[in-house]
Amino acid sequence: MKRIVLIIMDGLGDRPDKELQDKTALQAANRPNLNYLSSQGVTGLMSPVSFGIRAGSDTSHLSILGYNPHEYYTGRGPFEALGLGIDLKPGDVAFRANYASVKNNVIVDRRAGRIRNTEELSKELETEIDGVKFTVKSGVEHRAAVVMRGHGLSDKIADTDPHSINSPPLNAKPLSEEANFTANVINKFLERSRRILSNHPLNKNLISEGKLPANEIMLRGAGTMPALPSFKEKYGLNAACISGTPLIRGIAGLAGFDILNVDGMTGRIDTNYNNIILKAVSSLEKYDFILINFKGTDIAGHDKKPELKKQVIEKVDYVIAPLTKMLNDTLIVVTGDHSTPCSYGDHTGDPVPILFATDGIIKDNVNTFDELSVSIGYYKITSNDIMPLIMSYSDRSEKYGA
Amino acid sequence: MKRIVLIIMDGLGDRPDKELQDKTALQAANRPNLNYLSSQGVTGLMSPVSFGIRAGSDTSHLSILGYNPHEYYTGRGPFEALGLGIDLKPGDVAFRANYASVKNNVIVDRRAGRIRNTEELSKELETEIDGVKFTVKSGVEHRAAVVMRGHGLSDKIADTDPHSINSPPLNAKPLSEEANFTANVINKFLERSRRILSNHPLNKNLISEGKLPANEIMLRGAGTMPALPSFKEKYGLNAACISGTPLIRGIAGLAGFDILNVDGMTGRIDTNYNNIILKAVSSLEKYDFILINFKGTDIAGHDKKPELKKQVIEKVDYVIAPLTKMLNDTLIVVTGDHSTPCSYGDHTGDPVPILFATDGIIKDNVNTFDELSVSIGYYKITSNDIMPLIMSYSDRSEKYGA
Repeated sequence: MKRIVLIIMDGLGDRPDKELQDKTALQAANRPNLNYLSSQGVTGLMSPVSFGIRAGSDTSHLSILGYNPHEYYTGRGPFEALGLGIDLKPGDVAFRANYASVKNNVIVDRRAGRIRNTEELSKELETEIDGVKFTVKSGVEHRAAVVMRGHGLSDKIADTDPHSINSPPLNAKPLSEEANFTANVINKFLERSRRILSNHPLNKNLISEGKLPANEIMLRGAGTMPALPSFKEKYGLNAACISGTPLIRGIAGLAGFDILNVDGMTGRIDTNYNNIILKAVSSLEKYDFILINFKGTDIAGHDKKPELKKQVIEKVDYVIAPLTKMLNDTLIVVTGDHSTPCSYGDHTGDPVPILFATDGIIKDNVNTFDELSVSIGYYKITSNDIMPLIMSYSDRSEKYGA
Repeated sequence: MKRIVLIIMDGLGDRPDKELQDKTALQAANRPNLNYLSSQGVTGLMSPVSFGIRAGSDTSHLSILGYNPHEYYTGRGPFEALGLGIDLKPGDVAFRANYASVKNNVIVDRRAGRIRNTEELSKELETEIDGVKFTVKSGVEHRAAVVMRGHGLSDKIADTDPHSINSPPLNAKPLSEEANFTANVINKFLERSRRILSNHPLNKNLISEGKLPANEIMLRGAGTMPALPSFKEKYGLNAACISGTPLIRGIAGLAGFDILNVDGMTGRIDTNYNNIILKAVSSLEKYDFILINFKGTDIAGHDKKPELKKQVIEKVDYVIAPLTKMLNDTLIVVTGDHSTPCSYGDHTGDPVPILFATDGIIKDNVNTFDELSVSIGYYKITSNDIMPLIMSYSDRSEKYGA
């Protein structure tokens, strides 16, 4: 039985980019270690969730880890909230939230000037209304999560974020009758929040400095917290997650992973790549399965910065050198959770390269790791196929039949 | 967002043919434009419905357009009837029908000498029996469709076509108890039809000229007309269909496509290929999605004429030249709905080559378009994956997750 390191470069897949002489960021990157790993096993193209689907990081990570998103995905709220460290329980209804700026009853900035340090505001918004407890936790910049806990809650609630500026902020609308109570309670919460935020000294200071206040909290992505069957029970793997991204930490936590912390790990492009890999290597004494998510590739893709995406890949490639020496007793899997082409600036349904490297298995004809090279490799799979292949190549599968 | 042209060369896939020096018709064809399109994006092998399934044009077109045939396919009758312009409603029971020649109570020709102009006969067969209205409409040559509308109908009816000559024509047999009434009414219809046909002057003339009469109408492919969810609502696409084939027009009509007419379009090998492409190009001003079906490849396959199939492919290749200049704002998809190898003379479960061509996406290693070349391409998919890939490559997908 082998230990497993699964490296997800978030949004890894890309398209030919003019800025990179019609190469993808991965093709353009100097990537000796990724190329070496691709030569030490099998490769292929992996379509997240299914062919052509524009998967989010949430649905695709669920699927990669063996949880069918059609069964377990109920909106991004619960996963985002989990990632912020809120201790959710099945049945809780959670939302992603934005602090926004409202002036004369229309939204003038959906991100409140990308305000930071909203912790104090979030704390004051926490309350209990009609028996429903509201937990509010700040995330990166203007982002937050809002969780409702109580009886008779439903997640059939439309976004209160109109997703455009110059519109008035919305109240909660139930999408079915069962959600009438929930919508009603949310609207009381929003009323109270607006009163508190508009009177808060932090916002008064911002306004007096000519800056945008965070005087509205907008909710979206309602979802009921699902119960994920334990990864440990499903696969018999002691698993840990190394990621600076709340969403990924949340999903892994939901599956019962230990969530590891790393010095300098930020979930941003400026994360400490080397410390992450060192932590993974040292943690293999305790864990069978380490999930690593590097978010920088996705951020560069969303920001349409191919050169930056290439540099992130090169940083990852550089730090994974120690992994190339461990193939005798370790299965290394590298892929992305979806494509975020820099030319497009958002997720697409394009497949992502994947490699499975370990000693003793077939080596396919691929010796370079990119969207084109692996297309003549061993596999054309979807994310649902990853865990069975990991279990098989790490000599851990149960036989199906005899 | 890009516009989409989906070209289906019916029965395109083939097998090596001795007559073509062991090439397939597609491999043997001079096809510079198809080859060029294959070089401008991604290619692969597409298995209609699923791997190894010998799909019909109906099940495969349903599946290609995103309608699971296991859910929506209830027999070919309804689709054929729709294509002949009968205004079917959900719940109607429809059959494909053949005019046949019977002598001494055995079938001597299942196609009545491939009789033409049976419109007059069909008109006289229309009637109402026990509250059930029969609509009869002639198709190409000996073909027709029969539609029943009324209460208590079932499509659990065995073919009255014995599918062989020298057998007596069959009466309708119910395949389950619920179909007893339906079978009973059909048998009254068949009795009445035989009486009318044998006494009809058109048939008396044919016999006096020593030709085969159309004195029997045989029913097959019973199906209840399903309701297809609207393509426009499913995908947000304004769609049009350009095809001279009743079946394809019927399916597209059922999905809410506008059905376009083209000068010289016959649904046969002698169709006006150029007018079809000109119509598609000019229609892109009004429509987001154009489905084109060229039937000639399938006809040549059924007729076991590889050289003819090759010529049809060359005609298509020649006329699609304008499409190769439109890749900046158009996604061109070319495939078949199934394989009709000339060596076999009928549909097989072999996969069919497919290409997705548009500017800005990955170009795989394939620069020629045929059954072998595309096997090292990007995809090994089924027809169910086509619409998600089309939506993604035309920048129209909703994200699944965040």
